[in-house]
Amino acid sequence: MKRYFLFLFALVALTMSGQGFFSPTVNSPAIAKDGAVTFKVKAADADTVRLIIDTRVDTLMKRTGNETWSITLRDLEPDLYMYHYIIDGMKVLDNDNAQTLRDVKNVMNTFILDPKGDCPMAVHDVPHGEVRAVWYDSPTLGMKRRMMIYLPPGYDQDRQKYPVFYLLHGSGGDETVWLEQGRTAQIIDNLIASGNAEPMIVVMPNGNIDEQAAAGMTPDNNAQPTFAHKHWMDGTFEQSFKDIMQWVDNNYRTRTGKRNRAIAGLSMGGYHSLYISANQPEDFAYVGLFSAAIGRMDQGKSKIYDDLEAKLVTQFKQHPRLYWIGIGKDDFLYKDNTAFRAMLDKNHLRYTYHESGAGHEWANWRDYLVIFTQLLFK
Amino acid sequence: MKRYFLFLFALVALTMSGQGFFSPTVNSPAIAKDGAVTFKVKAADADTVRLIIDTRVDTLMKRTGNETWSITLRDLEPDLYMYHYIIDGMKVLDNDNAQTLRDVKNVMNTFILDPKGDCPMAVHDVPHGEVRAVWYDSPTLGMKRRMMIYLPPGYDQDRQKYPVFYLLHGSGGDETVWLEQGRTAQIIDNLIASGNAEPMIVVMPNGNIDEQAAAGMTPDNNAQPTFAHKHWMDGTFEQSFKDIMQWVDNNYRTRTGKRNRAIAGLSMGGYHSLYISANQPEDFAYVGLFSAAIGRMDQGKSKIYDDLEAKLVTQFKQHPRLYWIGIGKDDFLYKDNTAFRAMLDKNHLRYTYHESGAGHEWANWRDYLVIFTQLLFK
Repeated sequence: MKRYFLFLFALVALTMSGQGFFSPTVNSPAIAKDGAVTFKVKAADADTVRLIIDTRVDTLMKRTGNETWSITLRDLEPDLYMYHYIIDGMKVLDNDNAQTLRDVKNVMNTFILDPKGDCPMAVHDVPHGEVRAVWYDSPTLGMKRRMMIYLPPGYDQDRQKYPVFYLLHGSGGDETVWLEQGRTAQIIDNLIASGNAEPMIVVMPNGNIDEQAAAGMTPDNNAQPTFAHKHWMDGTFEQSFKDIMQWVDNNYRTRTGKRNRAIAGLSMGGYHSLYISANQPEDFAYVGLFSAAIGRMDQGKSKIYDDLEAKLVTQFKQHPRLYWIGIGKDDFLYKDNTAFRAMLDKNHLRYTYHESGAGHEWANWRDYLVIFTQLLFK
Repeated sequence: MKRYFLFLFALVALTMSGQGFFSPTVNSPAIAKDGAVTFKVKAADADTVRLIIDTRVDTLMKRTGNETWSITLRDLEPDLYMYHYIIDGMKVLDNDNAQTLRDVKNVMNTFILDPKGDCPMAVHDVPHGEVRAVWYDSPTLGMKRRMMIYLPPGYDQDRQKYPVFYLLHGSGGDETVWLEQGRTAQIIDNLIASGNAEPMIVVMPNGNIDEQAAAGMTPDNNAQPTFAHKHWMDGTFEQSFKDIMQWVDNNYRTRTGKRNRAIAGLSMGGYHSLYISANQPEDFAYVGLFSAAIGRMDQGKSKIYDDLEAKLVTQFKQHPRLYWIGIGKDDFLYKDNTAFRAMLDKNHLRYTYHESGAGHEWANWRDYLVIFTQLLFK
């Protein structure tokens, strides 16, 4: 027993791992059974400590001890949250919470609030699908590129074929972001388990075609948001999209034909989904535009973007089963989406419209994924 | 064009993503072609700014502008590094570097230094294997659990069978840590491409059997270092290990038999590898103990730990092809490993010994993986 404590002490003394080992049982934030969330932070000499949660909370914390500042929030909805502290003007992460996520180039702490055990973003005791990080060849781009694949529970045991949902990220993301901030694997697992979604394959490529893959997975180890790159929204990604579809159909047991294919994306990914589906009307019966970057500022850059209205008329003649548009009231793209809908209306092209609160943010995009996925392949 | 700038401006103005969008082209740290690494941090009102890199660097930075502190390091070896700043006593991450890794409960920034393009931890232009996150059934534990699988390049195209390397993490890790801090996928990709390692499947389970999976992937969303748990090193993980082997053999094209199986681990994972291989001498011809936690403090807790010396004698009668022990001179487990080797020597049990510099840290474990993997399945 003495030896046991010596060993534990040695672990605690490891300089490399400092704080983590000193407070192994502290979880932050503390979530009570009723869903109240308490944040605590040590900052003995600070003058002000602020807590920032997404765009939802920006509040001063109170000094509640010689060294400690804290605050309890009681009205948060079940969801995934991202937060950080501002201590005397400086961004500081929560040292008691090792769970972080990246948004564009910002790293923030994260937690999931699921007091009733029914939040679709949380892991529940249901069959889990499999997530794969694969490298595919893109002959059009002359590159090997990385993408993420979600396979439904049972895929490895059965011999069935499955429909495919192509899910695209925004300018700040990469192939991992729909799994991380988007919680796609958990959402689809839960919806399949409850019978509210069909079992499906979800394909999450990287829409930033100047890079092979996410930060840390590229040879140059130097990943940047898409809009810092040469090929931002210039039609190149859309032109190379069939490489992805072909690779997926060659490597997985897919059902083919438009009735078995959906495409959706957020922001830039919505723009990609719009133009890919308009240029390949034979390929997708389900299209989702989540806070889509419909600015049409790239007309003339590529033939992909030319004659959109005529392409949409052709696309809708083939009767897509679902053309879904979701946007938040406060989104800076709200007006552009309104103009786009007016153009669809003028041409009597029928779509489903979902207007939510809030703006251009992940809380909306996770909700849109939950809604959209339930409408697919039925 | 005006529209384009309006759109860019709107993106920049997004409050949720603040800093990342304001400085999209800043990469930190700045790595020069000769391998010099420059760190810069803004801290206008600070009195002291320290840079901490792993256990390798702890240095004061210099004020080099009204707001800016910086330092250039010229003698770092090619490797993966983890760092953070201490500004007036407070841990602060680098806001210009969105790449982070977790060590136990600490989050730190990370970068890879590869000035000559030959660092085995970096991504190179070679065929890449596939990484899968799978959930398996453990009948022994009555749990569904998550593990990571690396499949060699070509696995999905060919019909070959492959040998299997079981790779186990330490008390602070989980199923993801060998891929993240350990850079296993990159190391094995590079070694296979250069002909220095045989194509193999690598299986990375979660050795913390109080949890189903890594933080954020568990229903309770509350992951802790293993030693904070009930079942830390009590034989339960070792007893359930055959569930993992069986699942792997059922789900992948594996070569079976001991000549086609290796097991290795770091710290607690070394301890697990020691006892699993000693209790299943028929299963593994290759064993690797990386800074193994050989304290034998758990004797009596489980029959798994009883009679180790006799079990080892039996194991070595079956002539393992490689019994590899690696440890750093400064490791707090150095003495225990020396005592263990003395016991092997006394019994004339032949092993390969690798003594490195430094201590109980990832720089060693990545190196050990590079060395050990080249000796397998030949």
